[in-house]
Amino acid sequence: MTRIEIPRDSLFGTENLPYGVFSADGAEPRVGVRAGDSVVDLAVALGDEIFARPTLNAFMARGYDFWVETRRRVTELVTGEVPGEAVHPVERVRTHLPVEVADYVDFYASEHHASNLGRLFRPDAEPLLPNWKHLPVGYHGRAGTVVVSGTDIVRPSGQRKAPGEDAPSFGGSRRLDIEAELGFLVGTGSPLGSAVPVAEFSRRVFGAVLVNDWSARDIQAWEYVPLGPFLGKSFATSISPWVVPLLALEAARVPTPAQVPEPLPYLRESEPWGLDIDLSVSWNGEEVSRPPYREMYWSPAQMLAHLTVNGASSRTGDLYASGTISGPEKAQRGAFIELTWGGKEPVLVGGAERTFLEDGDEVVISATAPGAKGTRIGFGEVRGRVLPATGA
Amino acid sequence: MTRIEIPRDSLFGTENLPYGVFSADGAEPRVGVRAGDSVVDLAVALGDEIFARPTLNAFMARGYDFWVETRRRVTELVTGEVPGEAVHPVERVRTHLPVEVADYVDFYASEHHASNLGRLFRPDAEPLLPNWKHLPVGYHGRAGTVVVSGTDIVRPSGQRKAPGEDAPSFGGSRRLDIEAELGFLVGTGSPLGSAVPVAEFSRRVFGAVLVNDWSARDIQAWEYVPLGPFLGKSFATSISPWVVPLLALEAARVPTPAQVPEPLPYLRESEPWGLDIDLSVSWNGEEVSRPPYREMYWSPAQMLAHLTVNGASSRTGDLYASGTISGPEKAQRGAFIELTWGGKEPVLVGGAERTFLEDGDEVVISATAPGAKGTRIGFGEVRGRVLPATGA
Repeated sequence: MTRIEIPRDSLFGTENLPYGVFSADGAEPRVGVRAGDSVVDLAVALGDEIFARPTLNAFMARGYDFWVETRRRVTELVTGEVPGEAVHPVERVRTHLPVEVADYVDFYASEHHASNLGRLFRPDAEPLLPNWKHLPVGYHGRAGTVVVSGTDIVRPSGQRKAPGEDAPSFGGSRRLDIEAELGFLVGTGSPLGSAVPVAEFSRRVFGAVLVNDWSARDIQAWEYVPLGPFLGKSFATSISPWVVPLLALEAARVPTPAQVPEPLPYLRESEPWGLDIDLSVSWNGEEVSRPPYREMYWSPAQMLAHLTVNGASSRTGDLYASGTISGPEKAQRGAFIELTWGGKEPVLVGGAERTFLEDGDEVVISATAPGAKGTRIGFGEVRGRVLPATGA
Repeated sequence: MTRIEIPRDSLFGTENLPYGVFSADGAEPRVGVRAGDSVVDLAVALGDEIFARPTLNAFMARGYDFWVETRRRVTELVTGEVPGEAVHPVERVRTHLPVEVADYVDFYASEHHASNLGRLFRPDAEPLLPNWKHLPVGYHGRAGTVVVSGTDIVRPSGQRKAPGEDAPSFGGSRRLDIEAELGFLVGTGSPLGSAVPVAEFSRRVFGAVLVNDWSARDIQAWEYVPLGPFLGKSFATSISPWVVPLLALEAARVPTPAQVPEPLPYLRESEPWGLDIDLSVSWNGEEVSRPPYREMYWSPAQMLAHLTVNGASSRTGDLYASGTISGPEKAQRGAFIELTWGGKEPVLVGGAERTFLEDGDEVVISATAPGAKGTRIGFGEVRGRVLPATGA
């Protein structure tokens, strides 16, 4: 037996304890929990085969009471003694996609982001469309191209047509962008024909991850009418490997900004489920933005209620993301199209003026939030490097 | 051993032999092939455990050569002798969702449909948007709410706002509609970062099903800008239980309508893969439309090539549908919003004037196509009945 040393200011202390899927020493991927700079193999430490699997899905499907009980046992373990063979230094493990994603939905829940994009795309009209303050606008993305942090991103090819051009041309995207988002993982699904009330959010959602919703703005601009984004988004969506349990985010709860007009009854919440999470976006190692999640207009509970209000079922492994997180300040914008105002106001990266992503660029999104007992907890990071287009 | 009697004019003769998942006599669901009015249990008849599963996915994942070989063996079986215990009368089995759907994409490939909807939704503009003849417009739908024929459809609730109203109200959809479509099932997936050329279509796509893409037009009209359809579609998509192998559709191949302007090279085909399939839409037992698949502008091979041209991976079980099939004539329109011109030109159903779906209504979509040797082959049907909204 051994004791895990957790550095005093670790963002992965006992108030966090995120879950992920890791492999070490050539073994098969399995579920682990991160404590400080260690990863604990839960199948070995807790003796439960539900953790000897390559995704969190079976664990998540067991439901809320099992999540609470597991967190209690894990806390006991990492504050007491653990079998030595269950403990791996984090720098010695490889992390994998933590879940098998069922359906992936992307929302558009930041008023600042939606207003900025409205001004950029429709300069002569009201920035927000009439539906925006009545419902969390969203759409389905491609579940099969959700990848784990560290996966290289091949620049997508496709049809692009600049406003002045007569016809589209084919080639690698010239306006490759990021979107810094938070993603929520459904643990316990709901049947076809029934809606999930806002109050059930915390019993159905297992945890949260960071999301980089890579976006090819030129492909998107040409294709997106009238059925929405498709190939401009579907080439890759990266998520962070450590799933922060919703149970660890109680101390981060804050009210959302005031919602006016008052939403319809199915979207009204009696308790706040906005989240006080600070994100950071780094471009080739330089921080270029600090998006504040607390500014998001629609709450994660409202997004889930809306997603199911038409009777759509939900499943273990459903991932829904917030949409780009942008605050009111320029340095709080979570997409480069906003940060550089459509490419017209470059930012300095490594001393050079930059607008969209170049081959070889690397983007890292990280985040922290208040944890219980005055601590801070971390989400780790979602990282990706751009590789040149192939076959264009 | 026994011989299967196949009626001379059966739409399920030896040139069709569609696969599905069935259960009989209280046993677990497993893979079967339909021959005439019989269903042959393939795990029993061929002695291969790959068919003793509740979906076609494992079979489909084995790839093209295995599909060809299996079809050869199945043809031998049904024209020769079959173990008696492998044969079930079709009216004694229950059919199930034939695949575990990975990602679901819905296209918009009928020029007649897209033009009609353009005229209805944007009466003062060109009916087709500028991108439409350059690429197969599409979007991702909800894979988790694809259901098998026979599943009841609960009328979806949600936010609706009529043009004259100040604010949205909540309730059951007042404009519940259908879309008659054809769906294609990917058998062999493709990796992230690589595109599927048009020429690989017939080696990667396993077969086709009928699709009813139920649509709540009022929910859709209010929510769909700027990110496309979401809750107006995600409550249910029905598919037919028998998957017609692409190998059975060789005789149905026809060129698509002329494509002008010529598509970009990645969308050009050397051999035609349009399909001469006749659909029929029945509303409470009365045929109201006969949509012709041969009128579809974009071919299924072009849709798959487009779907992956940005490097998006594809997976066994991916389902992509054509979008509403409409021909040039009024009686060939595959959605009620077109057939009744936005509700302004009711059709007669059972002697009464009807526009959108009422509770208790039943819709059945069926289809036939030319088979080899001068035969005709059938797709069976996709059937669904509307139940009243709950909790509205």
